Amino acid sequence: MSLRMYDLAGADPAVRFSPYCWRIKMALAHKGLSVETIPWRFTEKDKIAFSGQGLVPVLQDGDKVLHDSWAIAEYLDATYPDRPLLMDGAQGRALANFARHWVQNAVSGILLKAVLMDIHAVIDERDKAYFRESREKRVGMRMEDFVIAPDAAQAQLKTVLSPLRALVQEQRFINGAAPAFADYCVFGAFMWARNVSAAKLLDEADPVHAWQERMLDLHDGLARKSPRGCA
Amino acid sequence: MSLRMYDLAGADPAVRFSPYCWRIKMALAHKGLSVETIPWRFTEKDKIAFSGQGLVPVLQDGDKVLHDSWAIAEYLDATYPDRPLLMDGAQGRALANFARHWVQNAVSGILLKAVLMDIHAVIDERDKAYFRESREKRVGMRMEDFVIAPDAAQAQLKTVLSPLRALVQEQRFINGAAPAFADYCVFGAFMWARNVSAAKLLDEADPVHAWQERMLDLHDGLARKSPRGCA
Repeated sequence: MSLRMYDLAGADPAVRFSPYCWRIKMALAHKGLSVETIPWRFTEKDKIAFSGQGLVPVLQDGDKVLHDSWAIAEYLDATYPDRPLLMDGAQGRALANFARHWVQNAVSGILLKAVLMDIHAVIDERDKAYFRESREKRVGMRMEDFVIAPDAAQAQLKTVLSPLRALVQEQRFINGAAPAFADYCVFGAFMWARNVSAAKLLDEADPVHAWQERMLDLHDGLARKSPRGCA
Repeated sequence: MSLRMYDLAGADPAVRFSPYCWRIKMALAHKGLSVETIPWRFTEKDKIAFSGQGLVPVLQDGDKVLHDSWAIAEYLDATYPDRPLLMDGAQGRALANFARHWVQNAVSGILLKAVLMDIHAVIDERDKAYFRESREKRVGMRMEDFVIAPDAAQAQLKTVLSPLRALVQEQRFINGAAPAFADYCVFGAFMWARNVSAAKLLDEADPVHAWQERMLDLHDGLARKSPRGCA
């Protein structure tokens, strides 16, 4: 078994910040599968053209080529069912799907406002024009006008994270006593912010912060050990 | 087997609007258990004193007395494991817990602003002073100053329901292809509003509205058939 994954990188190839790639790196560790990650930049569309599209993560498992983090997670459970499951049964799948839609719709937008300029700062020079053009088109304004101050982001996050806060005060992980793909979907968004920005987005007394610390410790500290591109 | 449940009622005893009681009525139907519901008013604390506390739902199953909708759901799965499960496995339990914290923290507050005066209008005369005093203490202002117009509530709901909207465009229910306790936890909040208020809180083109329609149809139209206390 030989797994390779194209993983979004900054100017420093050791800095990896894609929330979708983080989902899959945590998922692969969860299943006890080792992977060779290949640093990839936004504009290197040609390097992943063999996947039939232009976004990472792209996973190569022998002669199989997968993309899209959700499809990859389903593939990993289907292909390696004897290893710890990422989504256990129909309700486990529904939980992960709810968690990813929740983080994408309620949380990621605030994180983006907090760290958009930080992402721009850490990416490779070759990516900066592409990044600015595509993001300004998406948000409908100049990046500099879109971002908000860290304390404003922290206040907005405090509100939208209420459901997660209540949950992780009752159980250690979103998935229950043990983490699985619902946790990785939400955690990916936090790793995106962590690895590009030094901004303090969670109060250290927040139970969500304690959950984040537990996630950073998982799989021999896989996420905690990852280099940050910020000062 | 003889199940009895104390169920919050309005001045018209047929009008039942407690979100927590709706969770359990749907849960009992899900498990194929028939129940005799006893209309109960906020101030009838003496009638449920045997449960050791003062809130509904209170469920009597033979000589067992249960309260708290979450505890009742866990009891039903533990006591009737051969009937359809409300929470399937550890991840199914986590899904329901996430769904209930999400609806309580992100959604119910907006619904309350929309329907608080409507609740006051449908409850029994004997309950009105208690209701006003307890709710004004909770929200920190006069009820009349707390409520918002239906169109403002609809706009706020449209935003906070984004995760649910994305989810039910991909799968028929929160629990997946079939409904279970996560759906009932969220749906209870919508029944709370439906049975006291004629306000249109969801656009009919909203996929969340379509999910709500599917929920209203479940279990032989149990929820759809329930009388509404509003004009």
